[in-house]
Amino acid sequence: MAVRALWFRNDALHLIDQRELPRRTVVRHLHHVLEVADAIRSMTVRGAPAIGVTAAYGMVLAHQEGGYSAERAAKILRATRPTAHDLFVGIEVVRRAWVAGEEPRAAADRYCAGIVEECHRIGVAGAPLLARAHRVLTHCNAGALATVEWGTALAPIRVARERGADLFVWVDETRPLLQGSRLTAWELARERIPHAVIADNAAGAYLHAGEVDAVIVGADRIARNGDFANKIGTYEKAVVAHENHVPFYVAAPWSTFDAGSRTGAAIPVEERSPEEVLEFAGKQVAPRSSRARNPAFDVTPAKYVTAFVTPGGVVRPSEVARALARRAASEP
Amino acid sequence: MAVRALWFRNDALHLIDQRELPRRTVVRHLHHVLEVADAIRSMTVRGAPAIGVTAAYGMVLAHQEGGYSAERAAKILRATRPTAHDLFVGIEVVRRAWVAGEEPRAAADRYCAGIVEECHRIGVAGAPLLARAHRVLTHCNAGALATVEWGTALAPIRVARERGADLFVWVDETRPLLQGSRLTAWELARERIPHAVIADNAAGAYLHAGEVDAVIVGADRIARNGDFANKIGTYEKAVVAHENHVPFYVAAPWSTFDAGSRTGAAIPVEERSPEEVLEFAGKQVAPRSSRARNPAFDVTPAKYVTAFVTPGGVVRPSEVARALARRAASEP
Repeated sequence: MAVRALWFRNDALHLIDQRELPRRTVVRHLHHVLEVADAIRSMTVRGAPAIGVTAAYGMVLAHQEGGYSAERAAKILRATRPTAHDLFVGIEVVRRAWVAGEEPRAAADRYCAGIVEECHRIGVAGAPLLARAHRVLTHCNAGALATVEWGTALAPIRVARERGADLFVWVDETRPLLQGSRLTAWELARERIPHAVIADNAAGAYLHAGEVDAVIVGADRIARNGDFANKIGTYEKAVVAHENHVPFYVAAPWSTFDAGSRTGAAIPVEERSPEEVLEFAGKQVAPRSSRARNPAFDVTPAKYVTAFVTPGGVVRPSEVARALARRAASEP
Repeated sequence: MAVRALWFRNDALHLIDQRELPRRTVVRHLHHVLEVADAIRSMTVRGAPAIGVTAAYGMVLAHQEGGYSAERAAKILRATRPTAHDLFVGIEVVRRAWVAGEEPRAAADRYCAGIVEECHRIGVAGAPLLARAHRVLTHCNAGALATVEWGTALAPIRVARERGADLFVWVDETRPLLQGSRLTAWELARERIPHAVIADNAAGAYLHAGEVDAVIVGADRIARNGDFANKIGTYEKAVVAHENHVPFYVAAPWSTFDAGSRTGAAIPVEERSPEEVLEFAGKQVAPRSSRARNPAFDVTPAKYVTAFVTPGGVVRPSEVARALARRAASEP
């Protein structure tokens, strides 16, 4: 049974509340754009492509509710989280349809279906890269929950498995919010893909010990020069993979590529609440007087990336700018 | 008020139960060698030098109880944890006194006082290294709790502070057992040393951003060639520090150096229970069917170490073997 993160039905956006996983599968029904903004901000839904689709449907709900201009609805949704490029793309697609007098729902459905199809194509493009990789490390959750269906980093793993590959996945737990142990492990357990959860600290030791054949992660925003933002900790894994000559792949749909960011320095990085670090599952784990810092993302320089896995195939970091220019030229 | 991890009084070993920190300061009173073995195994006490002193007093309790041979007591204590070299040194010092008909308590007291004094000398040796380092990153707890008093990695920070240095400490929370947020932050908060706790994943981002001037950690065992074992995650920090040209220091008393381990490959690494990763404070954080791997330590190659900070001064990795030979030659 394939995992699906969200769907639109009976004039409401339905989404799995990812904060409740893996203990309970709770589906939230959202009827208002403000509820959608809150769901994105609170990480009820997360993952750059899923955020983009959620925001697209947020535009649909604003249109349906009445009383919002397209600009106003877009502004509310854009203000939720700063880093994922997909958020802005998903909003923009529906905003344009709305102001052109087209049906916002149809635009959002098309955008959503497009993301699902792109993720499947990422899987097809990436599966051959894993042909000789039996043990794959991933960080955070770049699975179906992060992208509606298939996932980005998990799509090549799923397609390779369908083709009979014998894969084992190392799952970084991904502090502070544990998207690895809570979400990626949940998806893999559901599909009976062999895996082991590890503390983020252990990834380096397994890379060094030769027990990881490839690393594959998603992205929240990819700059024109191939630098990319992803969940905090990605940079460390990339450096250590590079040091140990382990290939490092970044899987993403086109909406994650931001032609407007020349390098990673242009990508804004969200800093979240210190409580996410000072507490663990609601329990105090540091002294009351201690401060914390909590950047949600880091930016990994292009030099550590072996290749990007895109719906259009495998793209080397040095080819990103050209691939984006080609896509821009071919757009209607 | 200086932190002290343990003390021997009224025929009992008193130690702060480190599993209860930072919420409560609970002192355990141990009267039996088996209680001491359990305290080491359960990580009521942890940190290589503190484990060594605890085990030394475990030998004293066995002698006091009667019914144990020195060999039998040593065997019980040696079987608790495999990685820290200090454990074996602390046991051996008291075992020799015991079989030579000397007073075990006096031998353990001397060993304990020696560790405290060595830690202070580590502080004096290391403080000048931090003279231009305002922002220091540390991993796990290599403080007073890990060493009786002063600490290893924290000793140079304490001495530099006494001399008026304006230091800020980045504290890796150190999953899975959070010795950074629970113990290091507790020590720093108690002494009002400015600090911020971060998810282990964030250390790389701050190293890359130029916001860390030096890294200093402790060690559980240092091989003759300068490879060393320390808390899982140390290897990643060392690689990323090296990549960003940030000096990486390892502070340890002589009991942590193991002339019997030629390289890091000879150091046994303890793997602990998967539950430490799959649960937190009794709360499930991964699916019930997910496995986990949980190595407690990793081994960092000597090439990533800028210098060891020892009671005898600063020692380059290439000089470790010579320093150990010199010490062996000067021993009575």
